[in-house]
Order: sequence, then structure tokens, then C-alpha cells
Amino acid sequence: MHSPDETPTRTAFFVSDSTGITAETLGHSLLAQFEGVRMRQVRMPFVNSRDKVLECVERIAQAAREDGVRPIVFSTLVQHDLNLVLCSSDGLCLPLFSTFIGLLESELEMKATHAVGRFHGSADSSSYHDRIEAINYALGHDDGVTNKGLEEADVILVGVSRCGKTPTSLYLAMQFGVKAANYPLIPEDFERRALPEGLDKYRQKLFGLTIQPERLHAIRTERLANSRYASLDNCRKEIGEAEKMMRKEDIRWLDSSTKSIEEISTTIMQEIKLERQSY
Amino acid sequence: MHSPDETPTRTAFFVSDSTGITAETLGHSLLAQFEGVRMRQVRMPFVNSRDKVLECVERIAQAAREDGVRPIVFSTLVQHDLNLVLCSSDGLCLPLFSTFIGLLESELEMKATHAVGRFHGSADSSSYHDRIEAINYALGHDDGVTNKGLEEADVILVGVSRCGKTPTSLYLAMQFGVKAANYPLIPEDFERRALPEGLDKYRQKLFGLTIQPERLHAIRTERLANSRYASLDNCRKEIGEAEKMMRKEDIRWLDSSTKSIEEISTTIMQEIKLERQSY
Repeated sequence: MHSPDETPTRTAFFVSDSTGITAETLGHSLLAQFEGVRMRQVRMPFVNSRDKVLECVERIAQAAREDGVRPIVFSTLVQHDLNLVLCSSDGLCLPLFSTFIGLLESELEMKATHAVGRFHGSADSSSYHDRIEAINYALGHDDGVTNKGLEEADVILVGVSRCGKTPTSLYLAMQFGVKAANYPLIPEDFERRALPEGLDKYRQKLFGLTIQPERLHAIRTERLANSRYASLDNCRKEIGEAEKMMRKEDIRWLDSSTKSIEEISTTIMQEIKLERQSY
Repeated sequence: MHSPDETPTRTAFFVSDSTGITAETLGHSLLAQFEGVRMRQVRMPFVNSRDKVLECVERIAQAAREDGVRPIVFSTLVQHDLNLVLCSSDGLCLPLFSTFIGLLESELEMKATHAVGRFHGSADSSSYHDRIEAINYALGHDDGVTNKGLEEADVILVGVSRCGKTPTSLYLAMQFGVKAANYPLIPEDFERRALPEGLDKYRQKLFGLTIQPERLHAIRTERLANSRYASLDNCRKEIGEAEKMMRKEDIRWLDSSTKSIEEISTTIMQEIKLERQSY
């Protein structure tokens, strides 16, 4: 079957014995390198038995028939025999895991355990506990709701309302287990020409986000159209004041306008020299 | 240098021209296959110039000298020439990207763009916008704060307090762009023998989380030690009532006790047949 513009629609399968998040992450990164390629995408998580692999093989065969081109199969199956069965399918098999595991076995001079679900399935580990704690921390310290417990924060984000502080705080928690509090900079702070109360003694933890006025105007308009709050004039004024304050207080900051929360968070991790690993 | 127990400490580098999240995700999955291996881990994001690659090469050489064994280098550099420079370093180079890009080029009969930051850097895409919207949705519909806008929900999680609803809602939003509301099941609901008000007409969107009493007791004790709320007896009672209600109301549910938020979320995506892709 071909789509109206004659570009064949292909199917990409992400096959994993666990969540499939690793397979999808690398698979999407690779596919993003091909402009204009159209792919139907199918996640096949928890494929941890021969029967389930055979079900995948069948679905791959069906997609190959329907598409008229062979599917791309991104696999992170860790069990060698199951991966072999999968790669006997009608798809182009990209074994993301087994390609590298042999090299690592030689280098580390030990055998891989080939145990399933070792990564995104470790709900008992201390690092998992830290992530959940950090999520709770971000929720409990969002939008300047409390000054309590700031001594526990790894970083305190500041910036005007809707510049990306909350999603960034949550991403830092979820991906890196980092405890991030966040405070809005509001007109009252600009009038007082001072940071929100209580932040002064945590100056070394402060990190600022700023944003282009046009972008902020668009974001705020989605929430509260035709308001003073969302007007371009007001956005310009608030951002000008916020940047002036961050300069005066010598706070490191970045412009979030064209950055994803992944990019913002990774940059913050670098800037504040947090060496926590991602999950 | 060797650690006291004579296990050599090695260094793993995650080198990327973008955030490094893809490199870390696959790298961690691979390393998790080797039990007892100790690795110092260094994230090198935004390596997008020859100078920055040379800085990596220098740091890799330094780690090799200090550790006495060569580092493992997980690279997702998309530019061929930069990757070659990196892989001339003193580390074991695992080119996660370039290994597969050639195969995909042949299969798709087109050249990869080799453009940097194509994946975790797409803050302008509509799917990115959906994720941010979903995060805001989860925050605005956490813990049953409002019945407004439930028609927009992709899924509505229910379960006793502290069984994992909030982190799961946020993960569903962040990873899949799925809008998840969540409602606690509380003693008042059990007395009334009915779901929280307003949920009845969204029955097909409901998904339950349950948890083992001992695990819930431990989680609640961290928050409110020695309380009736956290007591094992009360946890047992609430969970029993919640499961009875979910059975009676014919709500699909899973036990979150030993599952990570990644596993819980992926399972929910499968169960409610949400085909949204992860990012």
C-alpha cells in the first residue's frame, strides 16, 4: 500500500523484553536522521518468551505484506536465542544490544548476565528511590509554594511565570534524580528589586531561565488570551526586569526559548556540575 | 589505581553532540548486564566541534592513565569525522549511532542528514508541545483536585494514597505525551461503596493501581511515621477495600509494588491500547 503522495509507508518495530524505552530512544534518534521518511511505529514491550517473539515475527510479516517494504526492527532483546528468532523475521533487524554486548564481554573479561529488565525495571534500587523522592520534592517545591527544605535542593530555578521552570524541575527529578525547587520572579520582586524572600542564602544553588518575549507571549496566550499577563508588552517588561535582576545578582541563566526540557536540564547539570547519572 | 577490594574502577564516557540521553540510556542498559562492574560515569553532552572532541579525547586519556584500564566510550556523535577523532582515543569506542546508520541508509535508499541534535532538541515540534501540555494536564489533574476537563484525559488512574499514581501520571506525560488524571480512593469512597464522584461516565478511561500492604506501609511511614494512616493494619484495610471496589466496578488494574514507573507506564500504554510513541 502506498500513501497518496507515493511515499511508501514503512513500519518500525521496537522490540524489548522490558519496557522498550531504550529501543525507542535509540531507534527514534536514528530515524530522525532521515528526513521525510514516514514510519508507522509499533512498540512491543515485555517480549520475554519464545511465544511472544513468534507473535512479533508474525506481526512483522504482516506489516511487510501490507507495506510492500520490509519493516525496520529495533531490538534490545538480551537473550541470544530469542533475538535470533526475532532476526529471522521479514524485517531489517538492528540488534541494538547484542551488537555491543560481545565487545563489552571481551573488554571486561566477563560474561553478560543476559538477565531481562535490568535497567528500567529496577524499582528496588536506591537510585530509583532517589528519583521518586526527587519527583515528590519538585512537586512540593513548585512555584515557590514553600521555603521549607531548600537546604535539600540541588538547584533552585528562578524566572518569570511560564518560562519552563516546572517541566524542567520535573525532568531533572525524573531523569537525573536531582532535587529542584523553583520560584517565579514576579512584578512584586521587581518593585522590591530583590530576589524572592529566603533565596539569598542559597545563592550558589540558583539557576535562572529566561525566554524570548514573543515565545512567552505565545505560551501565556494559550493559557489566558487577551490578558494583560499575556500581552507582548507585559512579557517584554517582565523579562527585561528578570534579566536585569539575574545580572545584578550574578545568577547563571540560559534562554529556554528554543530548547527542549532535555536540553535545558542537561545544560543545567553541566553548569552546576552535578555529576548525577540519568536513568 | 585499584579500589580496596582489588576491583579496578573503570570510567565510562557518554559522548553526544546533543544531550547525551540516548547514549546514557543504551550505555546504562548494556552496563547493567555486567554484575559487580564498578564504573565511574562521565556525561559529555553538546560535543559538536573538533575542539570539544579533542577535549573528550584528552579526558579519556587521563582516565585511562588514572584507572590503569581503558575507559568505555559510548558515542552517539552523528558527524562521521568527529566520531573518527573520538574513536582514535585510548578508550574502547562503541559508536552506537554510526554502527546502524549505514544499514539504514542502504535500506531506506537515502543518505542520513547527519544533523546534530535532531531528537532531544526538537522544542518546536508538535509532539514536544503535546508533552508539555500533558505535563501541565497531569499537574492540573493530580490527586482528584478537579473534575473539569476529564473528557480530555487519555487515562484516569485510581488507587489508594501513595500507590504511585502521581509519578506515573507525570511519566506518562513526559515520556509519551499522554494526558493522565489521577484520583485517590479514600475511606469515604469505600463507605459510600462508590467511585469518586464524576468518574462514572469515564469508566472506559479508568485504570487502577494497587500495591502490597507492606510496601505501602513502608512508603507511608517515610512520610508520616507512627500514624494511623501509615499503619500496616490500615494499609491492609484500604488496599482490600480498593481492590474490592475495582473488581466490582470492573476496572483494569496492576500491582505497582515491584514495578518502576517506566514499567507501570508501559504496561498501561499497552492495556489501554494507546499507540503514542515515546520521545
